[in-house]
Amino acid sequence: MKHDESTSTTDRPRVVILGGGFGGLTAARALKRAPVVVTLIDQNNHHVFQPLLYQVATSALESTDVAFAFRSLLRRQKNTEVLMGEAESIDPNGRVVHLSNGHAVPYDYLIVATGAQSFYFGHPEYKTHAPSLKTVRDALDIRYRVLMAFEQAEQETDPVEQRALLTFVVVGGGPTGVELAGAIAELADHALKRDFRHIDPTRAKVMLLERGPHILPMYPANLQAKAEKQLAGLGVEVRTSIGVNSVDEFGVVIGSDRIMARTVLWGAGTVGAAVACSLGTPVDRHGRIEVASTLNPPGLSNVFVIGDAAALVQDGEPVPGIATAAIQGGHYAAHAIVKRLQGKPVEPFHYWNKGQLATIGTSRAVAMLPARVHLWGFPAWLMYLTVHLVYLSGFRTRVRVFLSWIWSFLTWARGARLIPSQVEGRAFEAADEEEAPPPLGVDEHHPAPPSH
Amino acid sequence: MKHDESTSTTDRPRVVILGGGFGGLTAARALKRAPVVVTLIDQNNHHVFQPLLYQVATSALESTDVAFAFRSLLRRQKNTEVLMGEAESIDPNGRVVHLSNGHAVPYDYLIVATGAQSFYFGHPEYKTHAPSLKTVRDALDIRYRVLMAFEQAEQETDPVEQRALLTFVVVGGGPTGVELAGAIAELADHALKRDFRHIDPTRAKVMLLERGPHILPMYPANLQAKAEKQLAGLGVEVRTSIGVNSVDEFGVVIGSDRIMARTVLWGAGTVGAAVACSLGTPVDRHGRIEVASTLNPPGLSNVFVIGDAAALVQDGEPVPGIATAAIQGGHYAAHAIVKRLQGKPVEPFHYWNKGQLATIGTSRAVAMLPARVHLWGFPAWLMYLTVHLVYLSGFRTRVRVFLSWIWSFLTWARGARLIPSQVEGRAFEAADEEEAPPPLGVDEHHPAPPSH
Repeated sequence: MKHDESTSTTDRPRVVILGGGFGGLTAARALKRAPVVVTLIDQNNHHVFQPLLYQVATSALESTDVAFAFRSLLRRQKNTEVLMGEAESIDPNGRVVHLSNGHAVPYDYLIVATGAQSFYFGHPEYKTHAPSLKTVRDALDIRYRVLMAFEQAEQETDPVEQRALLTFVVVGGGPTGVELAGAIAELADHALKRDFRHIDPTRAKVMLLERGPHILPMYPANLQAKAEKQLAGLGVEVRTSIGVNSVDEFGVVIGSDRIMARTVLWGAGTVGAAVACSLGTPVDRHGRIEVASTLNPPGLSNVFVIGDAAALVQDGEPVPGIATAAIQGGHYAAHAIVKRLQGKPVEPFHYWNKGQLATIGTSRAVAMLPARVHLWGFPAWLMYLTVHLVYLSGFRTRVRVFLSWIWSFLTWARGARLIPSQVEGRAFEAADEEEAPPPLGVDEHHPAPPSH
Repeated sequence: MKHDESTSTTDRPRVVILGGGFGGLTAARALKRAPVVVTLIDQNNHHVFQPLLYQVATSALESTDVAFAFRSLLRRQKNTEVLMGEAESIDPNGRVVHLSNGHAVPYDYLIVATGAQSFYFGHPEYKTHAPSLKTVRDALDIRYRVLMAFEQAEQETDPVEQRALLTFVVVGGGPTGVELAGAIAELADHALKRDFRHIDPTRAKVMLLERGPHILPMYPANLQAKAEKQLAGLGVEVRTSIGVNSVDEFGVVIGSDRIMARTVLWGAGTVGAAVACSLGTPVDRHGRIEVASTLNPPGLSNVFVIGDAAALVQDGEPVPGIATAAIQGGHYAAHAIVKRLQGKPVEPFHYWNKGQLATIGTSRAVAMLPARVHLWGFPAWLMYLTVHLVYLSGFRTRVRVFLSWIWSFLTWARGARLIPSQVEGRAFEAADEEEAPPPLGVDEHHPAPPSH
């Protein structure tokens, strides 16, 4: 019986999925009962719930709250294997993916879900000084920089340098930039408020720079205005129509002005992953693969490109690079492969706009819903919480994240305050706990005189 | 009012505490209401709950469950400041501590709580191949190695190399070695059981090597036998009276035998931290400072050495290097400083033996309690859980750890399965979630044929 199964398995068409983000993971799961063999290839051993990554960067959540081991997610899916490795190039003629470890993985169908990476407008050297937020590693790196800036400011005696340490610049006013700026302002104003003896964290300055005339460019004008007002309420200095000339270790240069800031974060641009370009089909100016309405690049009917890796125009408008679009693309690609195997016709992909949300600190958000419904403030924030809890993987994580949020909301404490272990070491997290436990804490027999 | 306070504060005696482990943190807290200014210096920004570190190393807990930011723990203690930095040397004549960043911190009283570090018996080069478990970084490094060994074995085609990847050697049969070996065996047998397609994780081999005739040398013979039996029940191969001749990238050499193992962990020896030796007073052969019954090194009545940093003999027996001894030392040092300031006599330190516990996988342990009470198996394990939950810092962490344990006990899932982000990157954690979330998961409209 077992032998029969494995024999029939090797005869099945091979579906290779590159990338386990929202699109790739959805496609893998949607192929659970399909008569194919699925191989999911990812550089990491985990799926990342990207919309909440900024909360890991700002100590509100832990990495385990937003990262989930693929093997564990796909354990019960017997037709699927997970391959941890880096895809280096695709050979669409030979129908094979080459990995950086020298292995070659053949496919009958390929789903390219390699996402987008940060783009520094031709200045990759900025990355050292201004990390972006794409992976859990990025999030822990940002957390490290932000918390270390306060630690160093506490020990700094030069007031100019201390001010630079307490200045945080976020470049790019898209949702990631808005969420990061808001969360850093709240971290300084509340979570760290009473933790230092020589600096006042509430005097930290958070600036959000946007090249265009308004932050959240894809949102309608009324929500842009609401978001700017809500950010101002958190003490974030929003500056629009501002082009950054350069970024270095001292901060950013705008025209002839220099903003002295030891922490600069980049939320400004993205570009498709390089491996997708090795398909050799046309890409747009953001490095995304141009696809037809069937999500195939020209001439490659057995290759599907989904999510942020694809440049797709529908009804004259580009499909946005957001999680819901990637999820829908993943479902579609899986569906199309099964139809194809059955010899049935495949309808074109249709993106169903479910709206977009951006949160601004704890208890505020803006929401752009279908049918021109706009929400902001507390109702939008409640909607944000609900949607993200529903979409989060797994019951246990939902409970944990929900409890973390409740806890933060009630106490302002941040559950995951980073730690630089050693210079060459790996960053990790340390919890924020206010309560003194009895056994280690108060010594009842201790005859301490009253302090005065 | 505020001015008066700060003026009186600067006139107070300065107590500097080196190291924020159990001893140092207890001392800082016990000085909360004392008329002194306290400076706690630690390389990290967090206290580590070391007894549970092996659970971070084996994916059962997250780093935030066992690491707590000092600033947060000591937030309400106005007479205390936290200084993140590395103490390089102590000048007992000048009464000053020199930090590696060039700063000098003067003191009136010094509490040396620098703990112990791993000792490789004169072979520091072993450390690369056989990490030990002292810090959160160590724990994440071990977790990385263990989980990556399974990932690599899954892709390995050479059966000899695959076997080496699935062989885990723990050197040293003390509590840490016993706990690590048991937890790795359980990880392989349960948590990872169904996660791979080309290897069977339950066939992984875990070996525990002990130089002496029995594991847990400080325990009585009946509990040693129980522990060996419980480990055997988990499939751990315990080998005693075994001296390791060398450790390299291929495994360990014992006499003329070589054990091929890609993962070797070190739990064999400890030595006092180097900075403590700069006091210039006598040390024992483990590099621990010899102290009188007042915990002062000879001739230095304003210096207290506590916890693992101290070599103390009481009633003819060495005080063990365990958390309870360090906690009691911290209380004593704080108490003694206050008495001294009041001009009162100080009684000698007396270590109160509360017993020792070691756990062997989930649901088994051995406990050596006062009055020769011995426990083992499930009752000892329940005691272990209770004691550690009570001692853990903070209500929130207790709830989280308790839930993690319940969850693991019921499902065998491991909540914190590591991730190597990128080669040069920092390690972090990813959650282990079995449940498929509805929105990303099943596609009801997906016409997949039944798999067979």
